Amino acid sequence: MDIDAYSLSLQLNLIFLYMDYLESRRSIRKYTGQPVDDTLLNRLFNLAARSSTTGNMQLYSVITTRSEAMKKALAPAHFNQPMVTQAPVLLTFCADFNRFNQWCKQRKAEPGYDNFQSFITALIDAVIFTQTFCMAAEREGLGICYIGTTTYNPDKIIDILEIPQHVVPITTITLGYPSEIPVQPDRLPLEAFVHHEKYNDYTPEQIDKIYTYKESLPENLKFIAENSKETLAQIFTDIRYSKVNNKHFSDVLLRVIKEQGF
Amino acid sequence: MDIDAYSLSLQLNLIFLYMDYLESRRSIRKYTGQPVDDTLLNRLFNLAARSSTTGNMQLYSVITTRSEAMKKALAPAHFNQPMVTQAPVLLTFCADFNRFNQWCKQRKAEPGYDNFQSFITALIDAVIFTQTFCMAAEREGLGICYIGTTTYNPDKIIDILEIPQHVVPITTITLGYPSEIPVQPDRLPLEAFVHHEKYNDYTPEQIDKIYTYKESLPENLKFIAENSKETLAQIFTDIRYSKVNNKHFSDVLLRVIKEQGF
Repeated sequence: MDIDAYSLSLQLNLIFLYMDYLESRRSIRKYTGQPVDDTLLNRLFNLAARSSTTGNMQLYSVITTRSEAMKKALAPAHFNQPMVTQAPVLLTFCADFNRFNQWCKQRKAEPGYDNFQSFITALIDAVIFTQTFCMAAEREGLGICYIGTTTYNPDKIIDILEIPQHVVPITTITLGYPSEIPVQPDRLPLEAFVHHEKYNDYTPEQIDKIYTYKESLPENLKFIAENSKETLAQIFTDIRYSKVNNKHFSDVLLRVIKEQGF
Repeated sequence: MDIDAYSLSLQLNLIFLYMDYLESRRSIRKYTGQPVDDTLLNRLFNLAARSSTTGNMQLYSVITTRSEAMKKALAPAHFNQPMVTQAPVLLTFCADFNRFNQWCKQRKAEPGYDNFQSFITALIDAVIFTQTFCMAAEREGLGICYIGTTTYNPDKIIDILEIPQHVVPITTITLGYPSEIPVQPDRLPLEAFVHHEKYNDYTPEQIDKIYTYKESLPENLKFIAENSKETLAQIFTDIRYSKVNNKHFSDVLLRVIKEQGF
Protein backbone atom coordinates (compact mmCIF):
# COMPACT_ATOMS: atom_id res chain seq x y z
CA MET A 1 0.00 0.00 0.00
CA ASP A 2 1.52 3.38 -0.96
CA ILE A 3 1.29 6.55 1.14
CA ASP A 4 -1.75 7.91 -0.75
CA ALA A 5 -3.66 4.64 -0.40
CA TYR A 6 -2.70 4.45 3.29
CA SER A 7 -3.88 8.02 3.89
CA LEU A 8 -7.15 7.34 2.08
CA SER A 9 -7.70 4.20 4.10
CA LEU A 10 -7.11 6.16 7.34
CA GLN A 11 -9.60 8.84 6.28
CA LEU A 12 -12.20 6.21 5.39
CA ASN A 13 -11.70 4.49 8.74
CA LEU A 14 -12.21 7.80 10.51
CA ILE A 15 -15.44 8.42 8.60
CA PHE A 16 -16.71 4.96 9.45
CA LEU A 17 -15.64 5.18 13.10
CA TYR A 18 -16.99 8.59 13.96
CA MET A 19 -20.01 8.94 11.74
CA ASP A 20 -23.22 7.06 11.50
CA TYR A 21 -22.79 4.71 8.53
CA LEU A 22 -26.29 5.56 7.33
CA GLU A 23 -25.74 9.29 7.54
CA SER A 24 -22.28 9.34 5.99
CA ARG A 25 -22.99 6.99 3.13
CA ARG A 26 -22.35 7.77 -0.53
CA SER A 27 -22.27 5.54 -3.58
CA ILE A 28 -18.78 4.27 -4.43
CA ARG A 29 -17.70 3.86 -8.05
CA LYS A 30 -13.97 3.17 -7.59
CA TYR A 31 -12.60 0.21 -5.69
CA THR A 32 -9.25 -0.99 -4.34
CA GLY A 33 -7.89 -4.35 -5.47
CA GLN A 34 -8.84 -5.93 -2.13
CA PRO A 35 -11.10 -8.91 -2.80
CA VAL A 36 -14.40 -9.37 -0.99
CA ASP A 37 -14.16 -12.43 1.22
CA ASP A 38 -16.63 -15.24 0.46
CA THR A 39 -17.48 -15.79 4.12
CA LEU A 40 -18.29 -12.09 4.53
CA LEU A 41 -20.41 -12.07 1.37
CA ASN A 42 -22.39 -15.07 2.59
CA ARG A 43 -22.92 -13.45 5.99
CA LEU A 44 -24.25 -10.32 4.27
CA PHE A 45 -26.62 -12.39 2.11
CA ASN A 46 -27.95 -14.12 5.23
CA LEU A 47 -28.42 -10.76 6.99
CA ALA A 48 -30.24 -9.40 3.94
CA ALA A 49 -32.53 -12.43 3.97
CA ARG A 50 -33.74 -11.39 7.46
CA SER A 51 -35.55 -8.43 5.89
CA SER A 52 -39.29 -8.42 5.22
CA THR A 53 -40.64 -10.58 2.41
CA THR A 54 -44.20 -11.12 1.18
CA GLY A 55 -45.76 -14.08 2.98
CA ASN A 56 -42.20 -15.30 3.77
CA MET A 57 -41.95 -16.47 0.14
CA GLN A 58 -38.54 -14.80 -0.46
CA LEU A 59 -39.31 -14.03 -4.09
CA TYR A 60 -35.79 -13.02 -5.04
CA SER A 61 -32.43 -14.38 -6.03
CA VAL A 62 -28.98 -12.90 -6.54
CA ILE A 63 -26.35 -13.87 -9.08
CA THR A 64 -22.74 -13.09 -8.19
CA THR A 65 -20.20 -12.13 -10.86
CA ARG A 66 -16.51 -12.34 -10.00
CA SER A 67 -15.01 -13.74 -13.20
CA GLU A 68 -13.42 -11.21 -15.56
CA ALA A 69 -15.02 -12.93 -18.55
CA MET A 70 -18.54 -12.57 -17.12
CA LYS A 71 -17.93 -8.92 -16.13
CA LYS A 72 -16.85 -8.19 -19.71
CA ALA A 73 -19.86 -10.04 -21.08
CA LEU A 74 -22.24 -8.02 -18.87
CA ALA A 75 -20.56 -4.62 -19.42
CA PRO A 76 -22.35 -3.70 -22.70
CA ALA A 77 -25.75 -4.35 -21.06
CA HIS A 78 -24.70 -1.69 -18.54
CA PHE A 79 -23.51 0.72 -21.26
CA ASN A 80 -19.88 -0.10 -20.39
CA GLN A 81 -19.85 1.91 -17.18
CA PRO A 82 -16.23 1.45 -15.98
CA MET A 83 -17.16 0.30 -12.46
CA VAL A 84 -18.85 -2.82 -13.90
CA THR A 85 -15.50 -4.33 -14.88
CA GLN A 86 -13.46 -2.53 -12.20
CA ALA A 87 -15.42 -3.70 -9.13
CA PRO A 88 -14.29 -7.00 -7.59
CA VAL A 89 -17.90 -8.20 -7.36
CA LEU A 90 -21.01 -7.50 -9.42
CA LEU A 91 -24.37 -8.61 -8.02
CA THR A 92 -27.50 -8.98 -10.14
CA PHE A 93 -30.67 -9.07 -8.04
CA CYS A 94 -33.75 -10.70 -9.55
CA ALA A 95 -37.48 -10.91 -8.93
CA ASP A 96 -37.82 -14.71 -8.72
CA PHE A 97 -40.99 -16.84 -8.81
CA ASN A 98 -39.16 -19.77 -10.43
CA ARG A 99 -38.10 -21.49 -7.20
CA PHE A 100 -41.51 -21.00 -5.59
CA ASN A 101 -43.37 -22.23 -8.69
CA GLN A 102 -41.20 -25.35 -8.91
CA TRP A 103 -41.88 -26.09 -5.26
CA CYS A 104 -45.65 -25.66 -5.79
CA LYS A 105 -45.61 -28.03 -8.77
CA GLN A 106 -43.69 -30.66 -6.76
CA ARG A 107 -46.30 -30.34 -3.98
CA LYS A 108 -49.57 -30.84 -5.89
CA ALA A 109 -50.24 -27.09 -5.90
CA GLU A 110 -51.03 -25.05 -9.04
CA PRO A 111 -49.10 -21.75 -8.92
CA GLY A 112 -51.12 -18.72 -10.06
CA TYR A 113 -48.20 -16.32 -10.34
CA ASP A 114 -48.04 -15.74 -14.11
CA ASN A 115 -49.36 -12.19 -13.82
CA PHE A 116 -48.42 -8.54 -13.28
CA GLN A 117 -49.31 -8.36 -9.57
CA SER A 118 -47.04 -11.34 -8.86
CA PHE A 119 -44.23 -9.69 -10.82
CA ILE A 120 -44.56 -6.48 -8.78
CA THR A 121 -44.68 -8.48 -5.53
CA ALA A 122 -41.45 -10.26 -6.43
CA LEU A 123 -39.87 -6.98 -7.59
CA ILE A 124 -40.61 -5.31 -4.24
CA ASP A 125 -39.25 -8.38 -2.40
CA ALA A 126 -36.08 -8.21 -4.52
CA VAL A 127 -35.49 -4.50 -3.88
CA ILE A 128 -36.03 -4.83 -0.12
CA PHE A 129 -33.51 -7.70 -0.09
CA THR A 130 -31.04 -5.68 -2.23
CA GLN A 131 -31.21 -2.57 -0.09
CA THR A 132 -30.76 -4.50 3.17
CA PHE A 133 -27.75 -6.17 1.60
CA CYS A 134 -26.32 -2.76 0.60
CA MET A 135 -26.72 -1.32 4.09
CA ALA A 136 -25.19 -4.39 5.73
CA ALA A 137 -22.28 -4.16 3.27
CA GLU A 138 -21.74 -0.45 3.91
CA ARG A 139 -21.74 -1.08 7.64
CA GLU A 140 -18.75 -3.38 7.03
CA GLY A 141 -16.86 -0.60 5.24
CA LEU A 142 -17.66 -1.87 1.76
CA GLY A 143 -18.84 0.51 -0.96
CA ILE A 144 -21.72 -0.09 -3.37
CA CYS A 145 -23.26 1.56 -6.38
CA TYR A 146 -26.64 0.77 -7.92
CA ILE A 147 -26.64 0.42 -11.71
CA GLY A 148 -30.00 1.44 -13.14
CA THR A 149 -29.39 -0.11 -16.56
CA THR A 150 -30.66 -3.54 -15.49
CA THR A 151 -34.28 -2.64 -16.33
CA TYR A 152 -33.12 -1.18 -19.69
CA ASN A 153 -31.44 -4.36 -20.92
CA PRO A 154 -33.01 -7.24 -18.98
CA ASP A 155 -33.10 -9.38 -22.16
CA LYS A 156 -29.31 -9.18 -22.60
CA ILE A 157 -28.69 -9.94 -18.92
CA ILE A 158 -31.11 -12.89 -19.05
CA ASP A 159 -29.15 -14.38 -21.97
CA ILE A 160 -25.72 -13.91 -20.37
CA LEU A 161 -26.65 -15.15 -16.89
CA GLU A 162 -28.92 -17.94 -18.26
CA ILE A 163 -31.87 -16.70 -16.24
CA PRO A 164 -34.91 -19.01 -16.57
CA GLN A 165 -38.66 -18.35 -16.86
CA HIS A 166 -40.41 -16.51 -13.98
CA VAL A 167 -37.22 -14.64 -13.10
CA VAL A 168 -36.51 -11.02 -14.13
CA PRO A 169 -33.29 -9.13 -13.29
CA ILE A 170 -34.27 -5.92 -11.46
CA THR A 171 -31.13 -4.17 -10.34
CA THR A 172 -27.38 -4.62 -10.22
CA ILE A 173 -24.85 -3.34 -7.74
CA THR A 174 -21.08 -3.06 -7.88
CA LEU A 175 -19.33 -4.02 -4.64
CA GLY A 176 -15.83 -3.56 -3.25
CA TYR A 177 -13.62 -1.63 -0.85
CA PRO A 178 -13.69 2.13 -1.62
CA SER A 179 -10.66 3.76 -3.22
CA GLU A 180 -12.35 7.18 -3.29
CA ILE A 181 -14.24 9.48 -0.91
CA PRO A 182 -16.63 11.27 -3.23
CA VAL A 183 -18.44 14.40 -2.07
CA GLN A 184 -21.76 13.40 -0.57
CA PRO A 185 -24.49 14.41 -3.05
CA ASP A 186 -27.22 16.89 -2.14
CA ARG A 187 -30.68 15.75 -1.15
CA LEU A 188 -34.00 17.59 -1.26
CA PRO A 189 -35.30 19.07 2.00
CA LEU A 190 -37.72 16.98 4.06
CA GLU A 191 -40.80 19.00 3.01
CA ALA A 192 -40.14 17.93 -0.60
CA PHE A 193 -40.99 14.27 0.01
CA VAL A 194 -42.92 14.02 3.31
CA HIS A 195 -46.66 14.70 3.39
CA HIS A 196 -48.84 14.63 6.50
CA GLU A 197 -52.25 12.91 6.53
CA LYS A 198 -52.88 13.75 2.85
CA TYR A 199 -50.74 14.42 -0.21
CA ASN A 200 -50.29 18.18 -0.25
CA ASP A 201 -49.64 19.00 -3.87
CA TYR A 202 -46.96 21.62 -4.54
CA THR A 203 -47.50 25.25 -5.47
CA PRO A 204 -45.10 26.68 -8.10
CA GLU A 205 -43.43 28.66 -5.28
CA GLN A 206 -42.85 25.47 -3.26
CA ILE A 207 -41.29 23.76 -6.29
CA ASP A 208 -38.96 26.77 -6.74
CA LYS A 209 -37.96 26.60 -3.08
CA ILE A 210 -37.43 22.82 -3.01
CA TYR A 211 -35.03 22.90 -5.98
CA THR A 212 -33.17 26.17 -5.16
CA TYR A 213 -30.22 24.54 -3.44
CA LYS A 214 -29.76 21.82 -6.09
CA GLU A 215 -29.86 24.45 -8.84
CA SER A 216 -27.27 26.61 -7.08
CA LEU A 217 -24.60 23.90 -6.88
CA PRO A 218 -21.44 24.68 -8.93
CA GLU A 219 -21.32 21.16 -10.44
CA ASN A 220 -24.87 21.55 -11.73
CA LEU A 221 -24.20 25.01 -13.15
CA LYS A 222 -21.17 23.47 -14.89
CA PHE A 223 -23.36 20.67 -16.38
CA ILE A 224 -25.72 23.28 -17.82
CA ALA A 225 -22.90 25.31 -19.36
CA GLU A 226 -21.06 22.26 -20.75
CA ASN A 227 -24.20 20.97 -22.44
CA SER A 228 -25.35 24.40 -23.65
CA LYS A 229 -28.67 24.04 -21.84
CA GLU A 230 -30.80 26.69 -20.20
CA THR A 231 -31.84 24.80 -17.04
CA LEU A 232 -30.76 21.80 -14.96
CA ALA A 233 -34.11 20.13 -15.63
CA GLN A 234 -33.26 20.08 -19.36
CA ILE A 235 -30.15 18.02 -18.55
CA PHE A 236 -32.52 15.32 -17.29
CA THR A 237 -35.24 15.56 -19.95
CA ASP A 238 -32.98 16.10 -22.99
CA ILE A 239 -29.86 14.11 -22.10
CA ARG A 240 -29.90 11.81 -19.08
CA TYR A 241 -33.45 10.41 -19.12
CA SER A 242 -35.01 11.32 -22.45
CA LYS A 243 -38.56 10.49 -23.52
CA VAL A 244 -37.42 8.56 -26.60
CA ASN A 245 -35.14 6.33 -24.49
CA ASN A 246 -37.76 5.85 -21.78
CA LYS A 247 -40.34 4.81 -24.40
CA HIS A 248 -37.92 2.38 -26.02
CA PHE A 249 -36.86 0.78 -22.75
CA SER A 250 -40.49 0.61 -21.59
CA ASP A 251 -41.27 -1.57 -24.61
CA VAL A 252 -38.24 -3.78 -23.91
CA LEU A 253 -39.10 -4.22 -20.24
CA LEU A 254 -42.80 -4.93 -20.86
CA ARG A 255 -41.87 -7.49 -23.54
CA VAL A 256 -39.34 -9.20 -21.25
CA ILE A 257 -41.78 -9.38 -18.32
CA LYS A 258 -44.27 -11.17 -20.61
CA GLU A 259 -41.62 -13.42 -22.17
CA GLN A 260 -40.45 -14.44 -18.69
CA GLY A 261 -43.97 -15.65 -17.95
CA PHE A 262 -45.63 -12.83 -16.01
CA MET B 1 -46.24 0.68 33.00
CA ASP B 2 -47.29 -2.63 34.62
CA ILE B 3 -44.92 -5.46 35.53
CA ASP B 4 -45.57 -7.42 32.33
CA ALA B 5 -44.97 -4.38 30.12
CA TYR B 6 -41.84 -3.55 32.12
CA SER B 7 -40.51 -7.07 31.79
CA LEU B 8 -41.21 -7.08 28.05
CA SER B 9 -39.47 -3.74 27.64
CA LEU B 10 -36.42 -5.12 29.51
CA GLN B 11 -36.32 -8.20 27.28
CA LEU B 12 -36.57 -6.05 24.15
CA ASN B 13 -33.77 -3.81 25.38
CA LEU B 14 -31.59 -6.86 25.97
CA ILE B 15 -32.26 -8.10 22.45
CA PHE B 16 -31.42 -4.72 20.98
CA LEU B 17 -28.31 -4.28 23.17
CA TYR B 18 -26.72 -7.67 22.68
CA MET B 19 -27.77 -8.66 19.21
CA ASP B 20 -27.11 -7.18 15.82
CA TYR B 21 -30.28 -5.26 14.96
CA LEU B 22 -30.17 -6.62 11.42
CA GLU B 23 -29.76 -10.21 12.54
CA SER B 24 -32.34 -10.14 15.32
CA ARG B 25 -35.04 -8.30 13.40
CA ARG B 26 -38.62 -9.53 12.97
CA SER B 27 -41.74 -7.76 11.78
CA ILE B 28 -43.80 -6.28 14.62
CA ARG B 29 -47.59 -6.27 14.45
CA LYS B 30 -48.46 -5.16 18.00
CA TYR B 31 -47.43 -1.82 19.47
CA THR B 32 -47.38 -0.10 22.86
CA GLY B 33 -49.22 3.19 23.30
CA GLN B 34 -45.93 5.13 23.24
CA PRO B 35 -46.14 7.74 20.49
CA VAL B 36 -43.40 8.10 17.88
CA ASP B 37 -41.70 11.45 18.36
CA ASP B 38 -41.89 13.85 15.39
CA THR B 39 -38.23 14.83 15.65
CA LEU B 40 -37.21 11.17 15.55
CA LEU B 41 -39.49 10.48 12.59
CA ASN B 42 -38.00 13.41 10.66
CA ARG B 43 -34.48 12.25 11.46
CA LEU B 44 -35.33 8.78 10.14
CA PHE B 45 -36.80 10.26 6.93
CA ASN B 46 -33.61 12.27 6.40
CA LEU B 47 -31.46 9.18 6.99
CA ALA B 48 -33.59 7.22 4.53
CA ALA B 49 -33.12 9.98 1.96
CA ARG B 50 -29.36 9.33 2.06
CA SER B 51 -29.92 6.00 0.30
CA SER B 52 -29.34 5.50 -3.41
CA THR B 53 -31.75 7.09 -5.88
CA THR B 54 -31.80 7.09 -9.69
CA GLY B 55 -29.88 10.11 -11.01
CA ASN B 56 -30.44 11.77 -7.60
CA MET B 57 -34.05 12.43 -8.65
CA GLN B 58 -35.57 11.06 -5.40
CA LEU B 59 -38.63 9.69 -7.16
CA TYR B 60 -40.58 8.92 -3.99
CA SER B 61 -42.75 10.46 -1.35
CA VAL B 62 -44.22 9.29 1.94
CA ILE B 63 -47.56 10.15 3.49
CA THR B 64 -47.82 9.89 7.27
CA THR B 65 -51.05 8.81 8.95
CA ARG B 66 -51.48 9.53 12.65
CA SER B 67 -55.12 10.59 12.87
CA GLU B 68 -57.59 7.92 13.99
CA ALA B 69 -60.06 9.02 11.32
CA MET B 70 -57.53 8.52 8.52
CA LYS B 71 -56.43 5.13 9.89
CA LYS B 72 -60.06 4.02 9.92
CA ALA B 73 -60.55 5.34 6.39
CA LEU B 74 -57.50 3.40 5.14
CA ALA B 75 -58.22 0.16 7.03
CA PRO B 76 -60.61 -1.41 4.45
CA ALA B 77 -58.03 -0.87 1.67
CA HIS B 78 -55.74 -3.03 3.82
CA PHE B 79 -58.43 -5.68 4.43
CA ASN B 80 -58.87 -4.37 8.00
CA GLN B 81 -55.66 -5.89 9.31
CA PRO B 82 -55.77 -4.90 13.03
CA MET B 83 -52.27 -3.34 13.08
CA VAL B 84 -53.40 -0.65 10.59
CA THR B 85 -55.56 1.04 13.23
CA GLN B 86 -53.54 -0.16 16.23
CA ALA B 87 -50.13 1.25 15.18
CA PRO B 88 -49.40 4.84 16.26
CA VAL B 89 -48.12 5.68 12.77
CA LEU B 90 -48.97 4.37 9.31
CA LEU B 91 -46.67 5.32 6.43
CA THR B 92 -47.68 5.07 2.77
CA PHE B 93 -44.68 5.14 0.44
CA CYS B 94 -45.25 6.21 -3.16
CA ALA B 95 -43.47 6.14 -6.51
CA ASP B 96 -43.55 9.86 -7.30
CA PHE B 97 -42.80 11.62 -10.61
CA ASN B 98 -45.24 14.48 -9.82
CA ARG B 99 -42.72 16.74 -8.05
CA PHE B 100 -40.03 16.13 -10.67
CA ASN B 101 -42.46 16.71 -13.57
CA GLN B 102 -43.69 19.97 -12.04
CA TRP B 103 -40.10 21.15 -11.66
CA CYS B 104 -39.33 20.26 -15.30
CA LYS B 105 -42.38 22.17 -16.53
CA GLN B 106 -41.39 25.25 -14.48
CA ARG B 107 -37.90 25.04 -16.02
CA LYS B 108 -38.66 24.95 -19.76
CA ALA B 109 -38.09 21.18 -19.85
CA GLU B 110 -40.55 18.64 -21.28
CA PRO B 111 -40.76 15.61 -18.95
CA GLY B 112 -40.83 12.25 -20.77
CA TYR B 113 -41.83 10.16 -17.79
CA ASP B 114 -45.34 9.06 -18.74
CA ASN B 115 -44.30 5.46 -19.37
CA PHE B 116 -43.72 2.05 -17.79
CA GLN B 117 -39.92 2.31 -17.45
CA SER B 118 -40.31 5.57 -15.51
CA PHE B 119 -42.90 3.96 -13.24
CA ILE B 120 -40.55 1.06 -12.46
CA THR B 121 -37.66 3.48 -11.86
CA ALA B 122 -39.76 5.44 -9.35
CA LEU B 123 -41.04 2.21 -7.76
CA ILE B 124 -37.47 0.96 -7.17
CA ASP B 125 -36.50 4.38 -5.75
CA ALA B 126 -39.51 4.24 -3.42
CA VAL B 127 -38.73 0.73 -2.13
CA ILE B 128 -35.04 1.55 -1.52
CA PHE B 129 -36.15 4.63 0.45
CA THR B 130 -38.75 2.59 2.38
CA GLN B 131 -36.36 -0.17 3.34
CA THR B 132 -33.65 2.23 4.50
CA PHE B 133 -36.29 3.96 6.61
CA CYS B 134 -37.34 0.61 8.11
CA MET B 135 -33.79 -0.36 9.03
CA ALA B 136 -33.05 3.06 10.53
CA ALA B 137 -36.30 2.78 12.54
CA GLU B 138 -35.50 -0.73 13.77
CA ARG B 139 -32.05 0.42 14.85
CA GLU B 140 -33.85 2.89 17.15
CA GLY B 141 -35.85 0.10 18.76
CA LEU B 142 -38.99 0.76 16.73
CA GLY B 143 -40.91 -2.07 15.11
CA ILE B 144 -42.29 -2.12 11.58
CA CYS B 145 -44.46 -4.34 9.43
CA TYR B 146 -44.88 -4.13 5.66
CA ILE B 147 -48.45 -4.31 4.43
CA GLY B 148 -48.61 -5.86 0.98
CA THR B 149 -52.17 -4.79 0.26
CA THR B 150 -51.11 -1.38 -1.08
CA THR B 151 -50.62 -2.75 -4.62
CA TYR B 152 -53.99 -4.54 -4.35
CA ASN B 153 -56.02 -1.43 -3.62
CA PRO B 154 -53.99 1.52 -4.92
CA ASP B 155 -57.16 3.18 -6.30
CA LYS B 156 -58.81 3.30 -2.85
CA ILE B 157 -55.62 4.64 -1.23
CA ILE B 158 -55.25 7.29 -3.96
CA ASP B 159 -58.78 8.53 -3.24
CA ILE B 160 -58.36 8.64 0.54
CA LEU B 161 -54.91 10.27 0.60
CA GLU B 162 -55.74 12.60 -2.36
CA ILE B 163 -52.76 11.34 -4.33
CA PRO B 164 -52.31 13.27 -7.63
CA GLN B 165 -51.28 12.20 -11.15
CA HIS B 166 -47.82 10.62 -11.61
CA VAL B 167 -47.85 9.22 -8.08
CA VAL B 168 -48.69 5.58 -7.21
CA PRO B 169 -48.75 4.17 -3.67
CA ILE B 170 -46.38 1.18 -3.56
CA THR B 171 -46.18 -0.07 -0.01
CA THR B 172 -47.34 0.77 3.49
CA ILE B 173 -45.71 0.13 6.82
CA THR B 174 -47.04 0.22 10.35
CA LEU B 175 -44.67 1.80 12.87
CA GLY B 176 -44.46 1.91 16.64
CA TYR B 177 -42.74 0.58 19.74
CA PRO B 178 -43.05 -3.24 19.97
CA SER B 179 -45.37 -4.76 22.56
CA GLU B 180 -44.54 -8.32 21.41
CA ILE B 181 -41.44 -10.41 20.72
CA PRO B 182 -42.66 -12.78 18.02
CA VAL B 183 -40.65 -15.87 17.13
CA GLN B 184 -38.25 -15.01 14.33
CA PRO B 185 -39.60 -16.63 11.15
CA ASP B 186 -37.62 -19.23 9.22
CA ARG B 187 -35.66 -18.30 6.11
CA LEU B 188 -34.48 -20.48 3.23
CA PRO B 189 -30.85 -21.62 3.23
CA LEU B 190 -28.33 -19.49 1.30
CA GLU B 191 -28.09 -21.94 -1.62
CA ALA B 192 -31.80 -21.34 -2.29
CA PHE B 193 -31.35 -17.73 -3.41
CA VAL B 194 -27.63 -17.22 -4.22
CA HIS B 195 -26.25 -18.26 -7.62
CA HIS B 196 -22.63 -17.98 -8.70
CA GLU B 197 -21.68 -16.64 -12.16
CA LYS B 198 -24.83 -18.05 -13.77
CA TYR B 199 -28.33 -18.92 -12.62
CA ASN B 200 -28.15 -22.58 -11.68
CA ASP B 201 -31.68 -23.84 -12.06
CA TYR B 202 -32.93 -26.23 -9.40
CA THR B 203 -33.24 -30.00 -9.67
CA PRO B 204 -36.35 -31.55 -8.03
CA GLU B 205 -34.02 -32.91 -5.33
CA GLN B 206 -32.66 -29.43 -4.59
CA ILE B 207 -36.19 -28.02 -4.31
CA ASP B 208 -37.06 -30.81 -1.83
CA LYS B 209 -33.98 -30.02 0.23
CA ILE B 210 -34.47 -26.22 0.20
CA TYR B 211 -38.03 -26.49 1.54
CA THR B 212 -37.53 -29.39 4.00
CA TYR B 213 -37.06 -27.23 7.09
CA LYS B 214 -39.98 -24.91 6.31
CA GLU B 215 -42.27 -27.88 5.73
CA SER B 216 -41.23 -29.48 9.01
CA LEU B 217 -42.19 -26.51 11.21
CA PRO B 218 -45.07 -27.27 13.64
CA GLU B 219 -46.89 -23.99 12.78
CA ASN B 220 -46.90 -24.92 9.09
CA LEU B 221 -48.09 -28.47 9.79
CA LYS B 222 -50.86 -26.87 11.87
CA PHE B 223 -51.86 -24.58 8.93
CA ILE B 224 -52.16 -27.60 6.65
CA ALA B 225 -54.31 -29.52 9.12
CA GLU B 226 -56.54 -26.53 9.97
CA ASN B 227 -57.21 -25.83 6.30
CA SER B 228 -57.63 -29.49 5.34
CA LYS B 229 -54.90 -29.24 2.73
CA GLU B 230 -52.38 -31.82 1.61
CA THR B 231 -49.27 -29.62 1.36
CA LEU B 232 -47.98 -26.25 2.59
CA ALA B 233 -47.68 -25.05 -1.00
CA GLN B 234 -51.47 -25.45 -1.37
CA ILE B 235 -51.93 -22.98 1.50
CA PHE B 236 -50.26 -20.38 -0.73
CA THR B 237 -51.83 -21.28 -4.07
CA ASP B 238 -55.37 -22.02 -2.82
CA ILE B 239 -55.77 -19.60 0.11
CA ARG B 240 -53.16 -16.90 0.70
CA TYR B 241 -52.18 -15.89 -2.86
CA SER B 242 -54.70 -17.44 -5.23
CA LYS B 243 -54.62 -17.15 -9.02
CA VAL B 244 -58.08 -15.57 -9.18
CA ASN B 245 -57.07 -12.83 -6.71
CA ASN B 246 -53.72 -12.24 -8.39
CA LYS B 247 -55.44 -11.85 -11.77
CA HIS B 248 -58.01 -9.45 -10.36
CA PHE B 249 -55.44 -7.30 -8.56
CA SER B 250 -53.18 -7.34 -11.63
CA ASP B 251 -55.99 -5.70 -13.62
CA VAL B 252 -56.55 -3.11 -10.88
CA LEU B 253 -52.87 -2.24 -10.60
CA LEU B 254 -52.32 -2.01 -14.37
CA ARG B 255 -55.39 0.23 -14.70
CA VAL B 256 -54.25 2.50 -11.84
CA ILE B 257 -50.71 2.85 -13.25
CA LYS B 258 -52.22 4.01 -16.55
CA GLU B 259 -54.78 6.28 -14.87
CA GLN B 260 -52.01 7.91 -12.84
CA GLY B 261 -50.28 8.84 -16.10
CA PHE B 262 -47.62 6.18 -16.63
